[in-house]
Amino acid sequence: MKNIDFPVEEFHKILAPRPTVVVTSKDDNGNINAAPFSFVMPVSLDPPLIAISSSPNHDTVKNIEKTEGFTLSIATESIINEVWEMAKEVPSDENELEMAGLSEEPGKSINLPIIEEAIANFECGAVSIEKTGDQKLIIAEIFDISLRSDMIKEGILDVEKAKPLLHINDDIFVIGDHLRKVNE
Amino acid sequence: MKNIDFPVEEFHKILAPRPTVVVTSKDDNGNINAAPFSFVMPVSLDPPLIAISSSPNHDTVKNIEKTEGFTLSIATESIINEVWEMAKEVPSDENELEMAGLSEEPGKSINLPIIEEAIANFECGAVSIEKTGDQKLIIAEIFDISLRSDMIKEGILDVEKAKPLLHINDDIFVIGDHLRKVNE
Repeated sequence: MKNIDFPVEEFHKILAPRPTVVVTSKDDNGNINAAPFSFVMPVSLDPPLIAISSSPNHDTVKNIEKTEGFTLSIATESIINEVWEMAKEVPSDENELEMAGLSEEPGKSINLPIIEEAIANFECGAVSIEKTGDQKLIIAEIFDISLRSDMIKEGILDVEKAKPLLHINDDIFVIGDHLRKVNE
Repeated sequence: MKNIDFPVEEFHKILAPRPTVVVTSKDDNGNINAAPFSFVMPVSLDPPLIAISSSPNHDTVKNIEKTEGFTLSIATESIINEVWEMAKEVPSDENELEMAGLSEEPGKSINLPIIEEAIANFECGAVSIEKTGDQKLIIAEIFDISLRSDMIKEGILDVEKAKPLLHINDDIFVIGDHLRKVNE
């Protein structure tokens, strides 16, 4: 089979699909911002540390630089249209959760809303923010996870029920519900 | 719907499924090591920087700390058994690519093998390795990507053909071939 050189600056279109999350933060005037990300991964289990990579000009980064706390919601197929709506650029004093028609609930550990329609919400606090190339890398501790009780099976996400929303590029996603065990 | 508290140290079982890659490195005696990872994401597009999180005791980390270079291969359903074989612990002088029955090809930019059976191979060089909690975070520049020409469609990975292998936990994977465009 023929191999081609693929442009290295577009490697995210090949290292895909990736889990999609919604990060909710607020500026120091209390304005709520929410936006989807898929450059996200675990970087430690104990303590539980998560990494998010973002454009440095994004309101999410600017907010977390000021206020440190944020909530992170796991996106699933049931909110694909809301997630896509939140990807649009809007003025920074506009609340994207309201705009997308999602319902806010109070968080437990931090003073920020979680998303009622999300199957799982993480409450987080940034421990470091550093420049890496053309992006910024946020590393944060997870204080609390609330999860819909019917979305867990044998201790892990029940992907066939939850239908996690995974991102490739632009408006192109994958629904991660095609389960495959090695030893079956 | 009832929400439960989920243990924060197990958040990787919810932030899932994640792209699976095979990282091939060598120690300073030239012994090849290859192992699967799914804590991996883009952290910059220009320059193209990728982050991998690993247990600090892993041969992969020890090798990259010494030699800097590695190749990263995108895993797909067609090599699920080989990927699972390479996840096993073996002596550090054992070549997991041979053990799993995968074929080595010479890389273009760095002196390390790429995997013939992989649909895409990235050649990389570490730019930093730092401790984050109980893991180490490797950030590396991508020098070259070779991609099977039939695995690309409209500029992105053709997931329906490639069938990317995504990891949840242990031997439980998802095949990321359930495409979903928002505007359809």
